[in-house]
Amino acid sequence: MAVLRSYVEGRWTAPPSGEPVHDAVTGEEVAQVSSEGIDLGAALAYGRSVGGPALRELTFHQRAALLKSVGQLLREHRDELYQLSFRTGATLADSKFDIDGGIGVLLGYASKGRRELPDDRVYVEGPAEPLGRAGQFLGRHVLTPLHGVAVQINAFNFPVWGPLEKLAPALLAGVPTLVKPASQTGYLTARVVELVVEAGLLPPGALQLLNGDARDLLDHLQEQDLLGFTGSASTAQRLRSHPTVVARSVRFNAEADSLNMSVLGPDAAPGTTAFDLYVRQLVVEMTTKAGQKCTAIRRAFVPADRLEAVAEAVSERLAKIVVGNPADESVRMGALASREQREEVRRSLKALESAGRIVFGDPERVAVTGADAERGAFLSPILLRADDPRRAEVHEVEAFGPVSTLVGYRDAADVVALAALGKGSLAGSVVTDDPDFARDVVLGSAAWHGRLLVLDSDAAAESTGHGSPLPALVHGGPGRAGGGEELGGIRGVLHHMQRTAVQGSPRMLTSVTGQWTRGAARDESGGHPFRKSLAQLRVGDSVVAGPRVVTLDDIERFAEFTGDTFYAHMDEQAAAANPFFDGRVAHGYLVVSFAAGLFVQPDPGPVLANYGIDELRFVAPVYPGDELTVTLTCKAINPRPGDYGEVRWDTVVTKQDGSVAAQYDVLTMVAKEWP
Amino acid sequence: MAVLRSYVEGRWTAPPSGEPVHDAVTGEEVAQVSSEGIDLGAALAYGRSVGGPALRELTFHQRAALLKSVGQLLREHRDELYQLSFRTGATLADSKFDIDGGIGVLLGYASKGRRELPDDRVYVEGPAEPLGRAGQFLGRHVLTPLHGVAVQINAFNFPVWGPLEKLAPALLAGVPTLVKPASQTGYLTARVVELVVEAGLLPPGALQLLNGDARDLLDHLQEQDLLGFTGSASTAQRLRSHPTVVARSVRFNAEADSLNMSVLGPDAAPGTTAFDLYVRQLVVEMTTKAGQKCTAIRRAFVPADRLEAVAEAVSERLAKIVVGNPADESVRMGALASREQREEVRRSLKALESAGRIVFGDPERVAVTGADAERGAFLSPILLRADDPRRAEVHEVEAFGPVSTLVGYRDAADVVALAALGKGSLAGSVVTDDPDFARDVVLGSAAWHGRLLVLDSDAAAESTGHGSPLPALVHGGPGRAGGGEELGGIRGVLHHMQRTAVQGSPRMLTSVTGQWTRGAARDESGGHPFRKSLAQLRVGDSVVAGPRVVTLDDIERFAEFTGDTFYAHMDEQAAAANPFFDGRVAHGYLVVSFAAGLFVQPDPGPVLANYGIDELRFVAPVYPGDELTVTLTCKAINPRPGDYGEVRWDTVVTKQDGSVAAQYDVLTMVAKEWP
Repeated sequence: MAVLRSYVEGRWTAPPSGEPVHDAVTGEEVAQVSSEGIDLGAALAYGRSVGGPALRELTFHQRAALLKSVGQLLREHRDELYQLSFRTGATLADSKFDIDGGIGVLLGYASKGRRELPDDRVYVEGPAEPLGRAGQFLGRHVLTPLHGVAVQINAFNFPVWGPLEKLAPALLAGVPTLVKPASQTGYLTARVVELVVEAGLLPPGALQLLNGDARDLLDHLQEQDLLGFTGSASTAQRLRSHPTVVARSVRFNAEADSLNMSVLGPDAAPGTTAFDLYVRQLVVEMTTKAGQKCTAIRRAFVPADRLEAVAEAVSERLAKIVVGNPADESVRMGALASREQREEVRRSLKALESAGRIVFGDPERVAVTGADAERGAFLSPILLRADDPRRAEVHEVEAFGPVSTLVGYRDAADVVALAALGKGSLAGSVVTDDPDFARDVVLGSAAWHGRLLVLDSDAAAESTGHGSPLPALVHGGPGRAGGGEELGGIRGVLHHMQRTAVQGSPRMLTSVTGQWTRGAARDESGGHPFRKSLAQLRVGDSVVAGPRVVTLDDIERFAEFTGDTFYAHMDEQAAAANPFFDGRVAHGYLVVSFAAGLFVQPDPGPVLANYGIDELRFVAPVYPGDELTVTLTCKAINPRPGDYGEVRWDTVVTKQDGSVAAQYDVLTMVAKEWP
Repeated sequence: MAVLRSYVEGRWTAPPSGEPVHDAVTGEEVAQVSSEGIDLGAALAYGRSVGGPALRELTFHQRAALLKSVGQLLREHRDELYQLSFRTGATLADSKFDIDGGIGVLLGYASKGRRELPDDRVYVEGPAEPLGRAGQFLGRHVLTPLHGVAVQINAFNFPVWGPLEKLAPALLAGVPTLVKPASQTGYLTARVVELVVEAGLLPPGALQLLNGDARDLLDHLQEQDLLGFTGSASTAQRLRSHPTVVARSVRFNAEADSLNMSVLGPDAAPGTTAFDLYVRQLVVEMTTKAGQKCTAIRRAFVPADRLEAVAEAVSERLAKIVVGNPADESVRMGALASREQREEVRRSLKALESAGRIVFGDPERVAVTGADAERGAFLSPILLRADDPRRAEVHEVEAFGPVSTLVGYRDAADVVALAALGKGSLAGSVVTDDPDFARDVVLGSAAWHGRLLVLDSDAAAESTGHGSPLPALVHGGPGRAGGGEELGGIRGVLHHMQRTAVQGSPRMLTSVTGQWTRGAARDESGGHPFRKSLAQLRVGDSVVAGPRVVTLDDIERFAEFTGDTFYAHMDEQAAAANPFFDGRVAHGYLVVSFAAGLFVQPDPGPVLANYGIDELRFVAPVYPGDELTVTLTCKAINPRPGDYGEVRWDTVVTKQDGSVAAQYDVLTMVAKEWP
């Protein structure tokens, strides 16, 4: 049997022999794995010196395009991956969860990268913070890619989604990755990496693969590397306290499986939609991936007087679940990843049985379709019912398979207290149509959860379910769940970057961030900046227009024209009684309309459209007789694919005494070339 | 000599005897410290069960008010604190840095809390993320306070700023604190806590104090506790890998002293402003707190051909620094915190001398004013010059006293590479008037820095200097600097909270977040919501107004009135040639003005003013003949101290076919009571 190859330092390599890995369904040997002889320090150095610089050269948008191409490539090879995935014990539905889910993360990040990140290499976060009174000393936060390698140590249960959900934000951040799959299912991960490498989509060094034991890998980590882990809490602890990780403050993130809860609301009597949603979701969570999900429901909290009804309804559904060869279409639940894994689950079940009783399933026996029950790692779904809701085993012992425990609760406060006994979870859910109950449980237990799903009749048709992490939402949880945080859209990208506070004058902040900063010089020398194409325009290009007097007649005309006859514009006495005004004032909309009249260029030109306004504040009232002047300055330029890009204009409307009447950002689309 | 008291479980306590602590200037015993007999597990349990719930009951604004009252109280007692601070070896200027700096953090957070956080208990972060196509399944991130205690283990060098900079964000987040000062200067911290406790400003359990050894404190930490540490890299490692911290994923943050750099730009020849700024700043950083600052400049990078000139100019200034009793007004630099500390610095100097030579100062001798050089922990400022810029000692050995090393560099790329040899720093600075050089150094070395100051002639008058962390900016750095992040305005508050992704229908997200979510039911039953006071208004209250037809005449009138005669409004053919339009379109400003005309209520009422607009997007063009309808829905209510509060209105302008023309948030001030 061939030894799985690793891909390090730009080449494929494998030692002559390794440890066998077995098909979860047939018990046949699938491959051997070993990392013997691979220079892991050199692999990391290669990532840092070759992959990092190549990725950092690219803008966020260019990296997003890479993600998209990888996602599309893998989508084309889905069928091949599904076939390989059967051997891990996964059904087609399980495989889609893993493979399509992973592709979805790549495409989701590709899309978010283009929409929410600039076409630039530096990410500017938050507003400029004034640090002095004269306005010549400010602070601003920038994020830049770490100069290290994102090392990911993955769990066996999601050989595709696992590596891809860590790769996507790292790559978008500009940080190269080294993937170390779990040996049990690493052959599927290896095939994914092979496809990507063969297609030559990524720069050299951006993606490396280590099959087999991590050996001395962690000893070679440095200050700018990251270590991401998904798996058991005990391994997470070992990695977190590794001497090199500790000594070099290596950024460490863990997702550990946890004792996740799902709560049935007191409103959800048998026969209600919510009751059915709860039962169906619980069965799906128990049986998807044969319950081998970090996010699966382990603690099913139901009102104490509904225990019987829920146990019956769930058992009835579980009885219909066909267990067997995942390649068989009638099969709803496949095998665990290995027979060792099954033994592990049986041991945990023994502990759970000391705190409750089994109401469905037999840990030692299960009817199997299309496979040999002895050779494959098959196990029946097991539903338990706790005798004492507070017994430690219920909240601490995880059987990493198709196993959940029903626990009775009294009221919202009680279930919030029970939830906390899990000491930290990745995910939880509340199934209810009562918004008050949902709020009490969510806010009461949020501190213990990375993600909470409220499932009601409105959301049911679209719900992605309790167990699905999504790229736009954070994934990770406190305490027992590892204390980590991944994904969450752009948050996950920023986790791979260093946040740096930059202090300086507006001039210097403009140079560092590439965004014009209020207080920096403006350049009026090149004529009206609305006459400049994106190719000609520079941040700081500016125009001052006006003044224009606002008359009482203007205010009355505007009121009559728009219908906005608010008393502060129309009635001197009533306006003066308003705490903000000394008398009749101009409409805010009139002020910005006049400002536009002052700065707009009538003839066709590179500025194609005003597509929006951000952070408009009417800083001071405008009274009849006030003279308005507007200063428009190019603040940020963001080219888009195609013929135009976004330009953000700092806009300040001042009065005759120089005081500010209004300030805002005008957003325009500007052609890259003109004419 | 009395033993310093600890304040735990709501009472003051001290064992009969402890270890002596000595006056840094006179060597006299100041106090004794010991934590013997204090039940540290009980102290943490008290914080969790008494302090936490009390703080979580308060809104962000109420907690901000507490911070303000503590800041004001301490400001009143500044003089007393300065007197005590002299005994730590600090001059009056040093004391102001420590004491006024700490008060500044409290007041800064009080102010940011009121301005940037809602008057609520939950923090909603980022937009709603659509998770399904029908709009009935969304995700939103909320942050809620951790249910544990923020344990802070402080360094000896900032006995006031240190505890307060950690207390302020924790308290604002709703998390109680246990302060453990360094024994050497803990008497000053203890006095601060005494003042706060005596004044009864904080709820019971919100603030506890542990003087003396931490003993088994860390063994009692739990999943929701936080551990914050400032001090040496070696202690940081010990705490980070503590078995309980690891096993329970305790949130850990370290600020370790680092080998911070300051770069002189190549433009800054002797005689330039920048050159003087560099020299002056270096001397200030070397001598403030006798160089005992985690952020002090250890590596002074200057163009190789300027080494001589800088050495001379710095030495000249250092020669004028009067060392001695900090209570003496002529003294510019006081004592180190203890004689042991001085021995530590001398040992580090031996290592540094192997890599360079001393160009100013004598580690064994210093002229001392107003004190006994033998009994006090005095040391001369020491300037070294490195022979080889790449020698490891220069970048790795920190002498935690008035010690810096001059290092020559060739160009921007070279100094960026040298900076990285420090393996991670809290702070760095670049002194230059060249924006390109500043950008290259800042972006090149940002990944290794938590904060970077660019000092130029513009910023000079207002600059707070290389070594000053500020509450609005992040403090912390990667690698050697501990890999932590504190402060940074609201970021520091969020570090004490759990981020949770909440998924559900708009109805459920509205209930959980308290903010109306698009897709949730709107309530038009109560009449126009502009007639409701803050006391009557509820999120979801809504009005639909219109339709109003936009005519070509309207567009022409508006153009003529405002002067906005952009061709897309005026010229059918030119408009049609624009990629975004099919013909003449209405002005965006006209659309929002008409919308206001539709929803505004003319007569005096509870809505006092429209103070702004956020995130206005013109989603689709409005053509002559289009009919506009506006839907206004109360989205968020944020009461302010006084008679009114802010109300944010979700505003959608639709056309006759239901498509969206524009959407935005309208911001109004609304009276709490009406009439």
